[in-house]
Amino acid sequence: MQLKKFRIKMYRSHTCGELNSSHINTEVTLAGWVQKSRDKGFMNWVDLRDRYGITQLIFDESRTEKSVFEASKSLGREFVIQVKGTVIEREAKNKNIATGDIEILVSELTILNAAQLPPFTIEDETDGGEDIRMKYRYLDIRRNPVKNSLIFRHKVSMAVRNYLSKQGFCEIETPYLIKSTPEGARDFVVPSRMNEGQFYALPQSPQTFKQLLMVGGMDKYFQIVKCFRDEDLRADRQPEFTQIDCEMAFVEQENILNVFEGLTRHLLKEIKGVEVDKFPRITYDYAMKTYGNDKPDIRFEMKFGELNAVAQHKDFPVFNAAELVVGIAVPGCASYSRKEIDALIDWIKRPQIGATGMVYVKYELDGSLKSSVDKFYDEADLQKWAEITNAKPGDLILILSGKADKTRTQLSALRMEVATRLGLRKPDEFAPLWVVDFPLLEWDEDSQRYHAMHHPFTSPKPEDMKLIETEPGKVRANAYDMVLNGNEIGGGSIRIHDRDLQSRMFSLLGFSPEQAENQFGFLMNAFQFGAPPHGGLAFGLDRLVAILGGQETIRDFIAFPKNNSGRDVMIDAPSTIDEAQLNELHIKLDLK
Amino acid sequence: MQLKKFRIKMYRSHTCGELNSSHINTEVTLAGWVQKSRDKGFMNWVDLRDRYGITQLIFDESRTEKSVFEASKSLGREFVIQVKGTVIEREAKNKNIATGDIEILVSELTILNAAQLPPFTIEDETDGGEDIRMKYRYLDIRRNPVKNSLIFRHKVSMAVRNYLSKQGFCEIETPYLIKSTPEGARDFVVPSRMNEGQFYALPQSPQTFKQLLMVGGMDKYFQIVKCFRDEDLRADRQPEFTQIDCEMAFVEQENILNVFEGLTRHLLKEIKGVEVDKFPRITYDYAMKTYGNDKPDIRFEMKFGELNAVAQHKDFPVFNAAELVVGIAVPGCASYSRKEIDALIDWIKRPQIGATGMVYVKYELDGSLKSSVDKFYDEADLQKWAEITNAKPGDLILILSGKADKTRTQLSALRMEVATRLGLRKPDEFAPLWVVDFPLLEWDEDSQRYHAMHHPFTSPKPEDMKLIETEPGKVRANAYDMVLNGNEIGGGSIRIHDRDLQSRMFSLLGFSPEQAENQFGFLMNAFQFGAPPHGGLAFGLDRLVAILGGQETIRDFIAFPKNNSGRDVMIDAPSTIDEAQLNELHIKLDLK
Repeated sequence: MQLKKFRIKMYRSHTCGELNSSHINTEVTLAGWVQKSRDKGFMNWVDLRDRYGITQLIFDESRTEKSVFEASKSLGREFVIQVKGTVIEREAKNKNIATGDIEILVSELTILNAAQLPPFTIEDETDGGEDIRMKYRYLDIRRNPVKNSLIFRHKVSMAVRNYLSKQGFCEIETPYLIKSTPEGARDFVVPSRMNEGQFYALPQSPQTFKQLLMVGGMDKYFQIVKCFRDEDLRADRQPEFTQIDCEMAFVEQENILNVFEGLTRHLLKEIKGVEVDKFPRITYDYAMKTYGNDKPDIRFEMKFGELNAVAQHKDFPVFNAAELVVGIAVPGCASYSRKEIDALIDWIKRPQIGATGMVYVKYELDGSLKSSVDKFYDEADLQKWAEITNAKPGDLILILSGKADKTRTQLSALRMEVATRLGLRKPDEFAPLWVVDFPLLEWDEDSQRYHAMHHPFTSPKPEDMKLIETEPGKVRANAYDMVLNGNEIGGGSIRIHDRDLQSRMFSLLGFSPEQAENQFGFLMNAFQFGAPPHGGLAFGLDRLVAILGGQETIRDFIAFPKNNSGRDVMIDAPSTIDEAQLNELHIKLDLK
Repeated sequence: MQLKKFRIKMYRSHTCGELNSSHINTEVTLAGWVQKSRDKGFMNWVDLRDRYGITQLIFDESRTEKSVFEASKSLGREFVIQVKGTVIEREAKNKNIATGDIEILVSELTILNAAQLPPFTIEDETDGGEDIRMKYRYLDIRRNPVKNSLIFRHKVSMAVRNYLSKQGFCEIETPYLIKSTPEGARDFVVPSRMNEGQFYALPQSPQTFKQLLMVGGMDKYFQIVKCFRDEDLRADRQPEFTQIDCEMAFVEQENILNVFEGLTRHLLKEIKGVEVDKFPRITYDYAMKTYGNDKPDIRFEMKFGELNAVAQHKDFPVFNAAELVVGIAVPGCASYSRKEIDALIDWIKRPQIGATGMVYVKYELDGSLKSSVDKFYDEADLQKWAEITNAKPGDLILILSGKADKTRTQLSALRMEVATRLGLRKPDEFAPLWVVDFPLLEWDEDSQRYHAMHHPFTSPKPEDMKLIETEPGKVRANAYDMVLNGNEIGGGSIRIHDRDLQSRMFSLLGFSPEQAENQFGFLMNAFQFGAPPHGGLAFGLDRLVAILGGQETIRDFIAFPKNNSGRDVMIDAPSTIDEAQLNELHIKLDLK
């Protein structure tokens, strides 16, 4: 055997984050980027940066060879260099960084690659706007906030994988080139060259495959997997996103909640050092009545108090005409000025919220109550309101009224807004909970039919089955969401595993038998060959990581995100393709 | 907070793989599939199977309640059932399975789901052919060979992730909706609804993104990631496949080889319990001359011996006319009969191999030499051939001749074939090696231009740069493959990190400056903002797992593979899509 010998040219002996006073007098080789240089004429300091930290280099006219000293003056920001030198003690120590006690007296300098001036500063607080940072994402990733977010994401993913593996879960890759289905969101499709006139679809989730894995006996499955939805992008959505997708067989809802509550507690402990109590569980109905939405932020109180019984049938026509009168007690805000309250009223009247007015009650510290509707209600009335909204002296009660659903949505938005203004949404506080007993179906006015609230594979609660033909809207599902700090971070259900029930469900959702067979025949067939009871859930990894990282937006936790038009502005995709490519794919453009 | 309490209905207290004699007299609940039942009239044994094993159930007329006993007789293969019962000692112990010492005397039986008779037997050796197994893949997955392959894949993936993470690598997800590029294989494309007339492409590999991550300072990246190639599928290829994709900055080839040799040794140790020596390294030229291909199987010898100098210029016109005369010594086969040798000659004359003839020499155990060309060569001549092919007494020397490249390819195929026939390709033996110094370019007769042998981002060897304009075909690259048991399981290179060199490379490959800018401008721009020296490699996970698992084909290591027409026959994809979908995507069909 001919063995080749290679010389190792070592680019670095250490990283820029690891040298400290224990290394003094060591000869080292470092490589990295020039963060900045401070040229004092006879002395030139350069901050050298890599993924691991910053090390200060010193070029000293009296101690550094002339050519090296001169060359150091030509270094611009973001030049890639390699230096050899000796670790020495720094005179002015910097206690804020790990390498702050030392510096490198440089003896050799190699410019590995020069750099143009970057279009924005590579600093924690940059002068670059969103657009330019996306175009030069590779420069943005050099900044600590983005770099650390990506490393953080890796840590979370590894913790998830190791935890689930230890619990006996097996990560199984499901296909990306699957079949388009009309149900749910819009698919991205992929024309097939080999199957003329046919298309693959990219998965919106591996739902049917994970169910087939359960039929196949792989009773604990998970996968961290990309999913795709061709939807108009709201602010913080991406056309491709990552799910922690999970499924179990021979389980009931309770088993699933326990396993994934365990996973989440483990992540909070391992990643954030936070211990949380057993997760509260509330029903969908309770969540809607108490918080006005199905993903309540319970880091703070301000639960809804319904005031119809105590506020109606007096002389205030607005409340009397309302389907719902509902309020929250904002802690410690009785002292709000007229101006501050007006600002809140303006806020809820914005078109996005759409309230027409707001009533308030100041529950003064002395126990007295004053309201904007003193003309209609006396203090005894207001006292009842305070009780129902759980207000304490010093609180400000805010009350909305109108159609029930709309009013709840508005008050929910107001609740979140005042919590934000009061600093109650603390990024380092974590309040997870389960919301359970979701409705199976929701009525869609546009199509005048029921849609699956979760998806068509969700199992109705056995005790509600009797309502399925008569009052389908009242049937509850074995479906659940995990909510963290006001975000739905995961959701799932017990699935149907019976062919007949699945078939009935499709017909309830408006599928003809032929459509159901054509789209999901493979799944219904599978149910005939011994399908076990099963269920699961999926977490949105992008969102989960962002919340654990204490951030509101997911973008910095994605290496190469797309903008709101679904474009990658860095590589300029999507783009046109050749006529020859279109021909091979048996399609042509149909531009309007 | 309204806390809901749930009753836990436990589907099982144990799995079907965990009960043994230490559990005797324990009351247990099991759930699983009926593997088979043996009804002896007064006694009915049922093998209950789940992912973890098989447990024998016993229904005994004298000890089991009548209704349960009767019900047990209705159980068909693959019924999903739940049983409660007592663990008892088995009379006829089965030492071959973990639960062989016990059985369950059943007291309660619930049929969770009945099953139709499966279309093939769910046994290790099934009666189902490939097509039917693919159509009912969810049943195929219940079989141990497939189930265990998927679990094995999970273990390998986890071992890779944990090893690389511990080495400081960060797994970073790169996008799936990227830009189509004409270089390389054919892209799968995805029409964009929001960007009319434009298309995304699915990545053939995350090559440019990982390079941009290096420019971004994330100096150790990996990702286990799906990649896509729309190529006509050879036997064991899939349109979507999985790569372990890796990249490092501030490294030379030597550093990369060391890291990934470390990974591979770790996998062999951890997964297979096999310790291997430091990997041999051979050059591409040496591999081609010595084994006739660039992914030699070195579990056995049979190195090529070139015989031109000793076999030409005698009176044998076939050899005299040949560019290359080359042979191998097949160990211990001097005793082959005329019939056995003729079978080999027939084999190499098959159109797929295309040799026109073969010369052989028997090196008898007594040291004498007899050949099929005794008319032209005496024993002294043959003795030289034996020396050059490293033959020992008892070996059979097989010799091919003709055009050099073609003859090497033929002899390489013959070498593998005889090794297979002799049982030298042992699935539990692992012989990894590196092949290095690949040519940078290869000449393509069809397009009459050079193509990148690896890809256009591969760095030429600095010492060969002088040949780049004059003899580009002779320029070697800093490119390397890891080969295991005759398969290329990984390959990579040191990349170009200099804009000018990258630009020159594109022009050498026939790109106009506009094409280069249009396709890869983002990468060349990135190189101007401080790109570090970098390189990496990618392993084919499907193949790696199959080889570690001792298998020749990758299909059983993929949960839901596609057939050779790129179809998923289980879900019947690809399929037609609605006219409305086409309209939204601004395309129409163009069927011939």
